[in-house]
Amino acid sequence: MKKPKWVIEKENARKAASAETVWLFGLHAVRDALLNPKREKLRLMVTKNAADRLGEALNAGGLEPEITDPHKFNPPIDPGSVHQGAALEVKALHWGTLDDNCMADDGKPGLVVLLDRVTDPHNVGAILRSAEVFGARAVIAPHRHSAPETGALAKTASGALERQPYLRVQNLATTMERLQQMGYLLLGLDGTAEHDIKDALISAGSRPVGLVLGAEGPGLRQRTRETCDGLVKISFFGDFGSLNVSNAAAVALYAVGQRPDGS
Amino acid sequence: MKKPKWVIEKENARKAASAETVWLFGLHAVRDALLNPKREKLRLMVTKNAADRLGEALNAGGLEPEITDPHKFNPPIDPGSVHQGAALEVKALHWGTLDDNCMADDGKPGLVVLLDRVTDPHNVGAILRSAEVFGARAVIAPHRHSAPETGALAKTASGALERQPYLRVQNLATTMERLQQMGYLLLGLDGTAEHDIKDALISAGSRPVGLVLGAEGPGLRQRTRETCDGLVKISFFGDFGSLNVSNAAAVALYAVGQRPDGS
Repeated sequence: MKKPKWVIEKENARKAASAETVWLFGLHAVRDALLNPKREKLRLMVTKNAADRLGEALNAGGLEPEITDPHKFNPPIDPGSVHQGAALEVKALHWGTLDDNCMADDGKPGLVVLLDRVTDPHNVGAILRSAEVFGARAVIAPHRHSAPETGALAKTASGALERQPYLRVQNLATTMERLQQMGYLLLGLDGTAEHDIKDALISAGSRPVGLVLGAEGPGLRQRTRETCDGLVKISFFGDFGSLNVSNAAAVALYAVGQRPDGS
Repeated sequence: MKKPKWVIEKENARKAASAETVWLFGLHAVRDALLNPKREKLRLMVTKNAADRLGEALNAGGLEPEITDPHKFNPPIDPGSVHQGAALEVKALHWGTLDDNCMADDGKPGLVVLLDRVTDPHNVGAILRSAEVFGARAVIAPHRHSAPETGALAKTASGALERQPYLRVQNLATTMERLQQMGYLLLGLDGTAEHDIKDALISAGSRPVGLVLGAEGPGLRQRTRETCDGLVKISFFGDFGSLNVSNAAAVALYAVGQRPDGS
């Protein structure tokens, strides 16, 4: 019996995705990836100087480094990239399922970040750093219209991409409903919301929390807003201005850690 | 009597600085500059589409817009800049003196941000946004080795550059001493510090506070560290990671607003 067409398509997509590789660049990103045993590494290109600066990490990856002249250093990355003479081809990390990450009783606070179409890799990279620092279990984003795991994202994440689960899901609203079943209270950040995040967190007690952030400008999509348990704002001093999305995420993550019952 | 050489040099430098212009770009930055009566505007180049999107702001600046074909839109800005068809040549804003800004009894909290050699315009732009949102009186940086007021900074500041004083000073340590004379408590952010920022802020009571941040990597310079009244950290959940400098600034600014005696 022939497989249905949609099954074949799905299998092919999965094969293509698993074959897909990413070039990481920059000393920090490359070093942390080399030192990450869970990271599948394929090729390492470095200048002599970068090799020296990578030190012991150079050989920790189990790869033969291709040491090249700075003038001939030409990995397949964007021309303007600040590579510092180090580039590493890797496969994307497999973080496991939503349930694996978000139900884990591993001592981490019950805290996740959900991103609704945040496409800028620099913002997502900075959010991964903040998520790691404040102990979030995962940063979750839909497959489509999100920043993919690229070298630019990894560089901005400054190593956090190696340690902070970044889960890409088919459908954000469905994922939010699953988190709600797990007991998460989902708070959508919205500058026009009535309630302050601090007050909402006091009411939340020790419940696990999911912080939901949209892209600057469009904000949260309609279905995302409706699926949140509540919309909250970070109170401003004046009438003008707005926070960069990664700055809003950092403040919200910090605020969760400051709640009286924060676990 | 001839003026001494150093006086002439200083005068020439001042003349050059006052003649210096900046090209702002991007709809948000251009719109907010056009609407800012304090901003001296020189030339406005827009595509038809951008002109429509700027709406009433287009004429608020008192300039005749040069409407050009998108294919011929060629203002003197970096080729990769996301200009959205809008560019405006302006002079830098004059914010007045340190004393004017930081001693003002204008209802704003006693709160300033000092940046020690933070050179990345995207970080400084995001910090200006957060400073505005949390009511800081000024963001202060040395003239040298800081992000100048450029189009890239203005774009990341998303309008905040028009409203948030960004003071460039000759010498950061001298400026810090002046702030201390005004009564400011200067807290240097340092990941290796012993005390948590929250505890330091509780001890600070209602004193005005200056938050001092260094560039990622080098951190605070020796003299800057020594001039601070104390070094504080933002407590992390784990052992790994670090915050992007603009994210650290946002969290610290928020924390100041949350102190029990926060004014």
